[in-house]
Amino acid sequence: MGSKLKVAIVGSTGYGGVELIRLLEAHPLAEVTSVISSSSAGTPIAEGFPHLSEIRTDLLDGIDPAAIKAKADVVFTATPAGVASKLAPQLLEAGLKVIDLSGDFRLKSPEVYEQWYKKEPAAEHDLQRAVFGLAEVYGDQVKGAELISNPGCYPTATLLGLVPALAAGWIDPSTIIVDAKSGVSGAGRGASLGTHYSELNENFKAYKLNKHQHIPEIEQVLTDVAGREVTATFTTHLVPMTRGIMATIYASLTESRTDRDLIGLYRDYYHGRPFVRVRNEGIWPATKEVSGSNYCDIGFAVDSRTGRVTIISVIDNLVKGAAGQAIQNLNLMMGWDELTGLNFVPVYP
Amino acid sequence: MGSKLKVAIVGSTGYGGVELIRLLEAHPLAEVTSVISSSSAGTPIAEGFPHLSEIRTDLLDGIDPAAIKAKADVVFTATPAGVASKLAPQLLEAGLKVIDLSGDFRLKSPEVYEQWYKKEPAAEHDLQRAVFGLAEVYGDQVKGAELISNPGCYPTATLLGLVPALAAGWIDPSTIIVDAKSGVSGAGRGASLGTHYSELNENFKAYKLNKHQHIPEIEQVLTDVAGREVTATFTTHLVPMTRGIMATIYASLTESRTDRDLIGLYRDYYHGRPFVRVRNEGIWPATKEVSGSNYCDIGFAVDSRTGRVTIISVIDNLVKGAAGQAIQNLNLMMGWDELTGLNFVPVYP
Amino acid sequence: MGSKLKVAIVGSTGYGGVELIRLLEAHPLAEVTSVISSSSAGTPIAEGFPHLSEIRTDLLDGIDPAAIKAKADVVFTATPAGVASKLAPQLLEAGLKVIDLSGDFRLKSPEVYEQWYKKEPAAEHDLQRAVFGLAEVYGDQVKGAELISNPGCYPTATLLGLVPALAAGWIDPSTIIVDAKSGVSGAGRGASLGTHYSELNENFKAYKLNKHQHIPEIEQVLTDVAGREVTATFTTHLVPMTRGIMATIYASLTESRTDRDLIGLYRDYYHGRPFVRVRNEGIWPATKEVSGSNYCDIGFAVDSRTGRVTIISVIDNLVKGAAGQAIQNLNLMMGWDELTGLNFVPVYP
Amino acid sequence: MGSKLKVAIVGSTGYGGVELIRLLEAHPLAEVTSVISSSSAGTPIAEGFPHLSEIRTDLLDGIDPAAIKAKADVVFTATPAGVASKLAPQLLEAGLKVIDLSGDFRLKSPEVYEQWYKKEPAAEHDLQRAVFGLAEVYGDQVKGAELISNPGCYPTATLLGLVPALAAGWIDPSTIIVDAKSGVSGAGRGASLGTHYSELNENFKAYKLNKHQHIPEIEQVLTDVAGREVTATFTTHLVPMTRGIMATIYASLTESRTDRDLIGLYRDYYHGRPFVRVRNEGIWPATKEVSGSNYCDIGFAVDSRTGRVTIISVIDNLVKGAAGQAIQNLNLMMGWDELTGLNFVPVYP
Repeated sequence: MGSKLKVAIVGSTGYGGVELIRLLEAHPLAEVTSVISSSSAGTPIAEGFPHLSEIRTDLLDGIDPAAIKAKADVVFTATPAGVASKLAPQLLEAGLKVIDLSGDFRLKSPEVYEQWYKKEPAAEHDLQRAVFGLAEVYGDQVKGAELISNPGCYPTATLLGLVPALAAGWIDPSTIIVDAKSGVSGAGRGASLGTHYSELNENFKAYKLNKHQHIPEIEQVLTDVAGREVTATFTTHLVPMTRGIMATIYASLTESRTDRDLIGLYRDYYHGRPFVRVRNEGIWPATKEVSGSNYCDIGFAVDSRTGRVTIISVIDNLVKGAAGQAIQNLNLMMGWDELTGLNFVPVYP
Repeated sequence: MGSKLKVAIVGSTGYGGVELIRLLEAHPLAEVTSVISSSSAGTPIAEGFPHLSEIRTDLLDGIDPAAIKAKADVVFTATPAGVASKLAPQLLEAGLKVIDLSGDFRLKSPEVYEQWYKKEPAAEHDLQRAVFGLAEVYGDQVKGAELISNPGCYPTATLLGLVPALAAGWIDPSTIIVDAKSGVSGAGRGASLGTHYSELNENFKAYKLNKHQHIPEIEQVLTDVAGREVTATFTTHLVPMTRGIMATIYASLTESRTDRDLIGLYRDYYHGRPFVRVRNEGIWPATKEVSGSNYCDIGFAVDSRTGRVTIISVIDNLVKGAAGQAIQNLNLMMGWDELTGLNFVPVYP
Repeated sequence: MGSKLKVAIVGSTGYGGVELIRLLEAHPLAEVTSVISSSSAGTPIAEGFPHLSEIRTDLLDGIDPAAIKAKADVVFTATPAGVASKLAPQLLEAGLKVIDLSGDFRLKSPEVYEQWYKKEPAAEHDLQRAVFGLAEVYGDQVKGAELISNPGCYPTATLLGLVPALAAGWIDPSTIIVDAKSGVSGAGRGASLGTHYSELNENFKAYKLNKHQHIPEIEQVLTDVAGREVTATFTTHLVPMTRGIMATIYASLTESRTDRDLIGLYRDYYHGRPFVRVRNEGIWPATKEVSGSNYCDIGFAVDSRTGRVTIISVIDNLVKGAAGQAIQNLNLMMGWDELTGLNFVPVYP
Repeated sequence: MGSKLKVAIVGSTGYGGVELIRLLEAHPLAEVTSVISSSSAGTPIAEGFPHLSEIRTDLLDGIDPAAIKAKADVVFTATPAGVASKLAPQLLEAGLKVIDLSGDFRLKSPEVYEQWYKKEPAAEHDLQRAVFGLAEVYGDQVKGAELISNPGCYPTATLLGLVPALAAGWIDPSTIIVDAKSGVSGAGRGASLGTHYSELNENFKAYKLNKHQHIPEIEQVLTDVAGREVTATFTTHLVPMTRGIMATIYASLTESRTDRDLIGLYRDYYHGRPFVRVRNEGIWPATKEVSGSNYCDIGFAVDSRTGRVTIISVIDNLVKGAAGQAIQNLNLMMGWDELTGLNFVPVYP
């Protein structure tokens, strides 16, 4: 065990952090040597998360780059917006590698970050050296990176559903509409009326229309892939369930295509990528079919009457949309098999 | 009590039928004198629906037009597709008025019905005399009708959200995309893997893409309102909740408009219509805010970046999407105040 | 409308308060003339509760006994523990009648209140003049009362399930065990980790074992009915649903009885009491069968092997367990028919 | 891989079977070489369970002992009551070891089986050679067994919560009352009104009072442990969630004990047993804290006022209550570490 890679998790008391713990406990090549929380330092992590009883008996550490370096080689920062922009440079300076799960290093433009996040952006040179960790698209850049910016949950489902068709020129970039739905865990563990059980149960609601901070992240990648400025309509909804995201994506086809054509295109694009599964004709994935796993499952419905394609893309927001994808990036960064420690069967039912 | 209008309900053991009972028990001018079910005739209705214990102590009747006429003046048919097309003409002949909650009289074209429902259509002249009971749009025709075809749940939410903008020419009819989500009660009380708790709970799924039988109903009205052929993309999803529909509607604006413009347009259009509530700027309704009531609540989000408007429209699928709207039609048909027996406050939380 | 009784609601922004509004909007003899909230005074009630849009367009008032008296004749106080003990005497002095939905006047002993609620108790003479509003047991005292203490949600389900058997001497008072389960709305609208969706969904948990403040309230009535000191084991659990309470009650029979015997006993005891429904042999009520209504439904299972009876008692915690029962008490207090404004059919499904 | 133990699963299209697949895919020493279903033989297992797409690409086999023997060494039978009683002897004869997840071999008395299951019992000598696989109690017998009868879900939660106190003589066997609650997956994948989403969601219901077939199984073990005939009151409820069981257990203490005493007793009893976790004083486990894992978590609340102890015991019904416990038994049977392939962190939230 002494030969395992030592990793630390900053933000261990959030849902992203605690999911990293769950997944890393099963990782054969890495071990969590420090769980860190600024707010709860000094208390046992299992106190706030009794499901970890007898699994993690350690206390939460405070945030101190030197102390982290003494315990670990790689750090996951699963912190609120505005924290990692300051912390990650210190961790890098201390000789640590960093995988950030927040939005702080996702947008290349500090101005755009400031506009959507209403926080001070990271330094320009840090933004430039951060690699956007959407492994199925930018996997080559991830290998050997020092600072990885893990994609957002909505962008992951949306981009994996859109990139192959957009890259192939099969859809008109000016017609993209993404109707996204998420389970409540995406809103984090903070208590508010917006996460109150009685307000959300038996309720379906839309929120942040045209204002969600994941919009510029999606458009940045779409623009990169399309080779031209892409603006998309993106809507978010809250589903009365804990885990899961579905992106229902609409776009006009540039010429006549069938479901089979799209299935073929996507299977080619994702060939050798173990975490994307493309469904057969006339079958669309449901969120539960990827629950607890790192899969992104995709299905298609071409409507010849309107010339549009509808693409269904689902992930578990806490796994492929956060902790699982971060570990996938760790695997690539370390030169390990992408699947290492991540080949869980989805939990069904 | 003797002076109340006598009504019968065919299909009393489905969710639409039992919701009619719930609402009519509180109606001051009508009373249910016969609950009818072909499959359970002779048994107490409260046996299969214990929530009706001591409220309805009567037995279910069988289907017999003459017997129904002896007991009632108006009949609600809440039956599976293919039943009312045969039964309603017999009931009309017996001198009864009919409000049908199924899809059998919604489409004016028998061919289109056959294509989408895979059933034998109603007779052409019955289709012609049936009035499509979307009261906020076709209210004048409802008054005095003999045969009312109650709109489908998805079409109700969709059309109330679209008609004013389309009628005003504010949106481009060729750009309409409707991403609709429904609670599970919309699938009825029949037991199947598709309504199984463990399969649906903590799950969000898309179904019948481009194949839902409500598509031609929506397009028929949109075409009528726009005065030109309208084809729309329409997607349906199942939400892990019992009641509620949200239609998230996308369309390109024909010229620049603000949220306020749309709010004004819709409030004018629905002036005097008590069941449509238009939210203020930057606020969108959630399904729970209409639960148990006959309201349809609507909100807007114009995106100046893309020139599109997103319209959120919510209803309770069993009330405004079925039983409540049917009673609203009864009220209009009888010349009563539209609100009679329907001014319930939504059940929240 | 001018002739309706004017009522005010203190604590209108809690779930109990807003449910009072829902029910009173349908009451033919009373109208809500003032909605009161110390924390949100001056804002429209519909802002925080959009389901009330266009139904209640008034602003929330602050707490001022003289101002309340100018607007109303009866006040419901739906406030946290420790508020009504001070406020109610002022309201009474101002000439108002008061129905308190909190625990402040339920326990006759100030010491016991202080021990379980950890708050300063109401004055002894106020405790003495308060009538415990369990109408099916103490209905006679409710008529003409000035200050009614509305029972807690758990005690209502528990006591209606226990009193007839205990009063008849059919069960051994020393053997009573109550295993109670509640939907989350019972915890109120306050946001905390304990009401967080992701923590409660797909989760079933026990809480406050042997420490719930409803224990002394239950024992006070059981002691009164039995004519001897009764101590009961009482456990509370949180169910992942919004509304509903089930009390599963265990007790040893003092002599051999059948389900039918118990059904007969209970139907006799509750004869003329419209809100208690006793199920037939071998049938037990589920919480959804009373949802949204003022019913308490009860069923039995005698186990001849162990000599014990299991009693199932269900209510909607916000209706019969709070707002509905309070209106039932208003009806009795005013000399109206108990059913007035409360004869809702449960919302099913 | 060739050196892994080959196992077959009869009943692979039920929830128990498919959970066996999920867990065994992660087992380092065993591999599933045949998935068997009498009803769906010849079709791909991933067709009915799309979460297995690209994980299991094999077709379902039919039931044929010789064919099974050619492919496997151990068979799990996850079949409805009445199947394994006939099938297991054939499999044993073919030289296979069998772990049965049904109730067919749990009761030592054929008469009692017939009375509670209303099916023909297994042959007496098969009942005698079957080992009851509650590993924490009968672990020694499991090692080297040929036929293991895996305990029921309710009995597992109940017995692990009761056995140490009963064995120590700390509780009075005549006072045991078990109030048990289960998620819906316990009812299996068959579609019926009893598993219909709209009937169960936002609903809490009791069922099979004093009639559940797990009662004799619980009493058989309690009687064995107590060394005298034990009769218990046992009630089952359905919780609107998919996974999880809680047993809330009540019993009178034979002499005064504290929570700490019980915690100490249970920690001693389960010393070296990795799957039972005993909570600290004043803390009780919730079902989500074991979800997806093989843990059984236990907590206590002694009530000095009544002399009773309340014991809370939780499991995931599909893991510790079925597939996980079966694999735990496989591990013991094969002489492997009990934890092999089962050290999953619970999925939270």
